[in-house]
Amino acid sequence: MAGNSFGKLFNLTTFGESHGPSIGGVIDGCPSGIMLDFDAIQNEMNRRKPGQSEIVTQRKEPDTVEFLSGVFEGQTTGTPIGFIIHNTNQKSNDYSHIKDVYRPSHADYTYEKKYGIRDYRGGGRSSARETACRVVAGAIAKQVLKDVKINAFTSSVGDIFINKPYQELDFTKIESNDVRCPDEVIAQQMIDKIKAIRKEGDTIGGTVTCVIQNVPIGLGEPVFDKLHAELGKAMLSINAVKGFEYGSGFCGAKMKGSEHNDQFNSDGTTKTNLSGGIQGGISNGMDIYFRVAFKPVATIIQKQNTLDNKGSIVEMQGKGRHDPCVVPRAIPIVEAMAALVLADFWMLNKCYK
Amino acid sequence: MAGNSFGKLFNLTTFGESHGPSIGGVIDGCPSGIMLDFDAIQNEMNRRKPGQSEIVTQRKEPDTVEFLSGVFEGQTTGTPIGFIIHNTNQKSNDYSHIKDVYRPSHADYTYEKKYGIRDYRGGGRSSARETACRVVAGAIAKQVLKDVKINAFTSSVGDIFINKPYQELDFTKIESNDVRCPDEVIAQQMIDKIKAIRKEGDTIGGTVTCVIQNVPIGLGEPVFDKLHAELGKAMLSINAVKGFEYGSGFCGAKMKGSEHNDQFNSDGTTKTNLSGGIQGGISNGMDIYFRVAFKPVATIIQKQNTLDNKGSIVEMQGKGRHDPCVVPRAIPIVEAMAALVLADFWMLNKCYK
Amino acid sequence: MAGNSFGKLFNLTTFGESHGPSIGGVIDGCPSGIMLDFDAIQNEMNRRKPGQSEIVTQRKEPDTVEFLSGVFEGQTTGTPIGFIIHNTNQKSNDYSHIKDVYRPSHADYTYEKKYGIRDYRGGGRSSARETACRVVAGAIAKQVLKDVKINAFTSSVGDIFINKPYQELDFTKIESNDVRCPDEVIAQQMIDKIKAIRKEGDTIGGTVTCVIQNVPIGLGEPVFDKLHAELGKAMLSINAVKGFEYGSGFCGAKMKGSEHNDQFNSDGTTKTNLSGGIQGGISNGMDIYFRVAFKPVATIIQKQNTLDNKGSIVEMQGKGRHDPCVVPRAIPIVEAMAALVLADFWMLNKCYK
Amino acid sequence: MAGNSFGKLFNLTTFGESHGPSIGGVIDGCPSGIMLDFDAIQNEMNRRKPGQSEIVTQRKEPDTVEFLSGVFEGQTTGTPIGFIIHNTNQKSNDYSHIKDVYRPSHADYTYEKKYGIRDYRGGGRSSARETACRVVAGAIAKQVLKDVKINAFTSSVGDIFINKPYQELDFTKIESNDVRCPDEVIAQQMIDKIKAIRKEGDTIGGTVTCVIQNVPIGLGEPVFDKLHAELGKAMLSINAVKGFEYGSGFCGAKMKGSEHNDQFNSDGTTKTNLSGGIQGGISNGMDIYFRVAFKPVATIIQKQNTLDNKGSIVEMQGKGRHDPCVVPRAIPIVEAMAALVLADFWMLNKCYK
Repeated sequence: MAGNSFGKLFNLTTFGESHGPSIGGVIDGCPSGIMLDFDAIQNEMNRRKPGQSEIVTQRKEPDTVEFLSGVFEGQTTGTPIGFIIHNTNQKSNDYSHIKDVYRPSHADYTYEKKYGIRDYRGGGRSSARETACRVVAGAIAKQVLKDVKINAFTSSVGDIFINKPYQELDFTKIESNDVRCPDEVIAQQMIDKIKAIRKEGDTIGGTVTCVIQNVPIGLGEPVFDKLHAELGKAMLSINAVKGFEYGSGFCGAKMKGSEHNDQFNSDGTTKTNLSGGIQGGISNGMDIYFRVAFKPVATIIQKQNTLDNKGSIVEMQGKGRHDPCVVPRAIPIVEAMAALVLADFWMLNKCYK
Repeated sequence: MAGNSFGKLFNLTTFGESHGPSIGGVIDGCPSGIMLDFDAIQNEMNRRKPGQSEIVTQRKEPDTVEFLSGVFEGQTTGTPIGFIIHNTNQKSNDYSHIKDVYRPSHADYTYEKKYGIRDYRGGGRSSARETACRVVAGAIAKQVLKDVKINAFTSSVGDIFINKPYQELDFTKIESNDVRCPDEVIAQQMIDKIKAIRKEGDTIGGTVTCVIQNVPIGLGEPVFDKLHAELGKAMLSINAVKGFEYGSGFCGAKMKGSEHNDQFNSDGTTKTNLSGGIQGGISNGMDIYFRVAFKPVATIIQKQNTLDNKGSIVEMQGKGRHDPCVVPRAIPIVEAMAALVLADFWMLNKCYK
Repeated sequence: MAGNSFGKLFNLTTFGESHGPSIGGVIDGCPSGIMLDFDAIQNEMNRRKPGQSEIVTQRKEPDTVEFLSGVFEGQTTGTPIGFIIHNTNQKSNDYSHIKDVYRPSHADYTYEKKYGIRDYRGGGRSSARETACRVVAGAIAKQVLKDVKINAFTSSVGDIFINKPYQELDFTKIESNDVRCPDEVIAQQMIDKIKAIRKEGDTIGGTVTCVIQNVPIGLGEPVFDKLHAELGKAMLSINAVKGFEYGSGFCGAKMKGSEHNDQFNSDGTTKTNLSGGIQGGISNGMDIYFRVAFKPVATIIQKQNTLDNKGSIVEMQGKGRHDPCVVPRAIPIVEAMAALVLADFWMLNKCYK
Repeated sequence: MAGNSFGKLFNLTTFGESHGPSIGGVIDGCPSGIMLDFDAIQNEMNRRKPGQSEIVTQRKEPDTVEFLSGVFEGQTTGTPIGFIIHNTNQKSNDYSHIKDVYRPSHADYTYEKKYGIRDYRGGGRSSARETACRVVAGAIAKQVLKDVKINAFTSSVGDIFINKPYQELDFTKIESNDVRCPDEVIAQQMIDKIKAIRKEGDTIGGTVTCVIQNVPIGLGEPVFDKLHAELGKAMLSINAVKGFEYGSGFCGAKMKGSEHNDQFNSDGTTKTNLSGGIQGGISNGMDIYFRVAFKPVATIIQKQNTLDNKGSIVEMQGKGRHDPCVVPRAIPIVEAMAALVLADFWMLNKCYK
C-alpha cells in the first residue's frame, strides 16, 4: 500500500536510502528449484552501476549483491529471497549544501511536504540508487522466464534518434558501445552529444525502446490489469520517466482504422504489428515493443536559484558526480521492470489453467 | 488478481459483458456520510452513452444506473455500493456473423486463446461497454474529492490538434460542442473530419488531454506507486489507448536540464510546470496534466480479410453501429479513471497522518 | 481493503443489505471452461435459506440466484461472475421499533459509531443474510475443487455434543435430519433442545465441525498465510463465530510432545492425525478437520433493557422471525468458506509449479 | 501472495532461514515522524530470545536488530524500514542428522513436498526463529498505537491453568517470573511442570491469553476482515498454534442468548463483556481479550521412529537445545501480532474519516 512493493505473484519489496548503510529488497514468490546464475545477476548490476564508462557518473560503487535467504545450495527454495547491496561510497558531506534547500525538479520539496521529514543525503529514498534492487529482482525474473527475450536500447538522446524500425537493428550490438544504441553510427553521435552536454555542466533527456520476443499468447488480465497497463505503470515508476507508448503509440492516434488494423495470417500471427503484440490487454504472441521517455537529469553543474526551507530564494550549484544523461544506465532497469511484469503474468496465467 | 478490480482504498470491481442481461460493479471503500448527487452521476453517464450526438455511434442505450446497496436515505453508509446497468439494446443477431471469426485488431483472438471460450456477442467482456461502470464509480469519486477539478478534452483528432497550451483554453467550452474540444474553431474541423471519415466507412484516432487542478500536495506513494505511474496504468487500462505522457512527456526527452528544471517561487509553486504537477511520484500542488493516445476504432465498415476459428482466411465486413472516433465519448472515462486514482491516494494519505 | 472481498486468485466481493432491493456479489478469478452445475448451486442455497425446517426462522426467502455475467452457454468464461439475489421478504416495518435503539450484542452500536450512519432495517449489512452470497461462491468453488470432499455438520448444540471421533460418523446422514448432525440419536436430542429453547423465546449456541478429505499435499503459504490461518480467518468472518480450532486444538495445549507427535507411515501418511492435516501451514494430505464455535443468536423474544441513540436505557422486545439456533443453517456457510480458502490455495499452488 | 507479508497499510514482509547469514524484514507503511524508542524494541526482542531463563532453550542468540533504512536522525521517515538480525549461533552440524529425515509433526515433509527442496538446517524457513522479525515490527507498531495497552500472559501449561477472570490479575506481575504468568502461585506450578517435562526429554503445550485495553471504537472492517478474524489469522500464523477464541469463545457455544447478551450502560459501555470487545467485527471500546492454544514442541529428546526421504522408517533422536514449552517465549510474539493487526486497522480507520 505504501508503494514499495511491485508484483502480485512474483513480488518485490525494496528498501533503502542512497546514503544509508545499505539498500536491499525481498523477492516473495520466486518459484523453487531454480539454479540461480549469479554471474548473470551481477552482469545486470554492472550494466547499471555508476562509473562503468566515461559518459556516466564517475561515482564508484561495486554494487555487489549479498543474498541473505531463499537460496540453498545455489537453488531457490520458494521462500523469500532477501538481499542487500552495501552503500560503499557515501560521501555524505557532498550533500550538506542541500540540507536546507529544495533542488529544482527534484523530489526534495514533495518528500518533505508529504512526510514532514526527509533524508536529504543524495536524495535519500528518491535517489535512482533504489533501482539497483529492481535490477537484482529483474535478473532473477529473467531466469524464471527462460525463453522470453527482452532487449532494451537507447533509441534517442536529445534530438538524435534511430530512424529505423527495430526489425532492422542488430540487438547483439547494444552492448558494443557505451550508450547502448544498436546503430553504431547513431551511437557515436549520441556519445558525442552527451560529452558536449557534460562539458556545459548540463544534462540531456532521451528515450529507451524495449522489444520483448517469444512471449506466450495469453499474458495479461483485462480489464484493469492489461499487460500494457502494467508495463506502463512499471516504466513510469522508474525515476525521470515522463511517457510510455506501445505499438503504434502516439502515432497511432493520427491513423485511420483501415491503416492501423493488423491483418491476420492463417497461423494467427499478423502481417503488421501496430498493436505491439497486445490485443485487449492480452499478449497475442507477436513481439511486444514500447518506448519510454526520460527527462534530462535535474542535477546540473550550473548556478540555479532555488527555494530553501525558510521560504527564501537562494542560489545553489550542483556538486558531486552526476549523469549527464540517464538513458545508458536506464537500459537494464527498463529490462528488469519488463521482466518483473512478465514473470508475474506468466505465473498468474498458470493459476487459471 | 484477475484484473477486474481497481484501487486499494476506494476500490471498484466491475463485471458484465456487452450483451449479457446487465453490467455492473461494486465500490468498496467509499467513505460514509456522503449525500450522493445522483443527477451528477447520471450526467456523467450521459456524456459517455451512445447515441448522444451525430458523430458517435447511433446505438441507443439509456444507461441508467440502478443502485442496489451502500446508500441509505440518499447517503453512503460505508458499506459496498453495488450497482447495475441493464443492457437494453442487445441485438445479438448483429453479431452472429463474427461468431466464428476473429476481427482484426480486436480482442477476439486473444480472449479465445487465453480462456478457451469467448462470448462473441459485441466483444463480450472486451467491449468498451464495461467503461460505463467506471464512469459511475468515477462520478462518485469526484464527489469524494470535492474541490479537486478534473477537466479532460479532445486535444487532437487525426492530424487536427489544438496548438495552444491548456492555460489558454476555456474549459467551460468543452461541453459546447459534440467533439468536446474547448477551441471552437478546431472543434468544428474535428467534427468535419470525423463525419468525412465515417462516410468512408473508416475510423480515426485522437488524443485526450486531462488537467487536474486544486490537487493537495503529497498524493502518490513512491517508489512503485508513483502518482503518474498509477494515472498511466489507469489510462492505459481504457480500451484503445496506446500511450500516456504527463508534463513535458516525450518532448521532455529532447530537452536539456537547464531548460527543463522548474524554478521555484518562494511560496513553493514553480514558475514553469514541465514536471506536470508531480515530483518524485508525489503531487507538488501545481496542475497535473497528461495526454492519452487513442488508436482508431478497429471496427470499420469496409471489407477486410481475417481469420476464422478453423484457421482459414475469410472476408468479413463490419456491421452494426460503431463510433467513427472514440475520443468524444472517452472524455468522461478519462476523467473517471483520474478521479479513481486521486480518490484512492487522497484517502491513503490520511492513513499516514 | 474495506473488508468486503475474500480470496486472492479466486476472489469474492459481496454487497448488499438485508432490506435493500437485492444482495449480490462478484467472483473474479474463476477459471474458464467450467460447465456450471446450477442445481448444485441452488441446492447449497436451499440448505442455508430460511423457512427450510421447523427449527429455523420461519421467514420465507426463495433465495434464487440470478447470474448476470461470466457464464456463456453454461460455461464459465474466465471473466467476472456477477450475481444477485433479490430480497423478496423485506417487511421493513418489522424494524421500525429498532430505528433508534441499539440491540444488545448486535452490531447496531458499532456500525453507527464507525460509519456515523446505519441501515437499521434487519441489521442492514451486518445481517447474516450476506452469507447467502458466500454460499453461491462456495458452491462454485466446490466445482473448481472437484475431488476434494468438504463435509460440515453440527457437532454440538448447547451442552449436547457428539461424543465420537469424526471417523466413526456417517456423513451421508448429515442431511437426514433438520439439525444436520450425522449421529441420529444426538440429532434428535439437539432438535428437542432447540424447540424447547424457542418456546422460552430464547436462543442457544453450538459448534460446527468440518472435515475436508482428498486435499492435495502442498496447499498453504507460510509464514503468514498458513492454510489453517486462512481457514481460521474465513470461519471467524462468519456471523456469530467466537472460536476456531483445528486438529488437536485446545486439547492439544494440554498434551505432551511424545503424545502429540504424529508418527509417519512409509507412504508419508501418519498413524495419528492430531496435526489436523496441516504441518507448518501446508496441507500434508491427511484429512483436514476443524471446529467452529457459534454464540447464541442475540435476538431473543424476551424483554431486555437496552440503549437508544439519545443515551437513555429503554426496554425493548425482539420481534420478527429469528433462528433459535444458528448452527443448522451455518453448515453450508462453513463449507462454502472452506471451499473458498481451498480453491484459492489450489490455484495459487499452480503458479509456483 | 506467497505468504511472507502481513498487514495492508502497516505492512511487514519477513525473510530468512534459521541458519542463513541473517533473517530480517521490511516494514512498509510506518507513519513518518515517530521518534523510535530503540530500547523498547530491543526489550521486546529480549523477551523472545533464547537462553533468557532456565525454562527455555539454552541456545544463545543476542538477537540485536540492525536497521538499514527508513529511520533518519532517530525518526521514521515514512519510507520502508529495512532491518536484519544476524544468525550468530548456527551450529549447522547439529542438523546433519536430519538432512534426510522428516521429523514427526514438523514441517520437513510438507516443505519438501511443496517446494521440492528444503533448507533442513534448523527447520529453515519453518523455524520459529522467523518470529523474531515479527517482534521487531510489533514493537514499532506498539509505538504507533501509543495509548493502546496490549498484555499477553501464560494462562495455562498442560493442565495447570489460571482459574480467575483476567480482571482479577495484576499484569505488572507478568514479567516477574520466567513463565510470564501474572498469578505467582500458578506461575511456580507451571515452572515446576516445565522443568519436570524437560527432565523426561519431553515437551508440553499451553495457552496464552491476551488482553487489549484502550482500543478506540470502530476498528475492524466487516464483512470478511472483521477485527477478530484478522486477530485469529494473526495468532494462527504463529508456529505451533492450534486454536483461537475471543470473548466467550467455545464456552459461548454452550450458552443461551439471554445469558450471553451484554447489556448496555447509558455511556455505551456494557455491564458484561462476553462479546470480547468486538461487535459485528468492529471494536466497541470494551476490552478485547482472546486465548491462543499452543501445541507441545514437536522436537523431543527421546527416540522416535520416523520417515526418511527414501521412504524407509528409521529411528531418530532429537538433538540440540530446544524449548520444553514454547509458551513463555510466545508472549511477546502474541503481543507483536496483535499490535500489527491493530495498527493496520487503526490506520485504515483514518482513510474513511
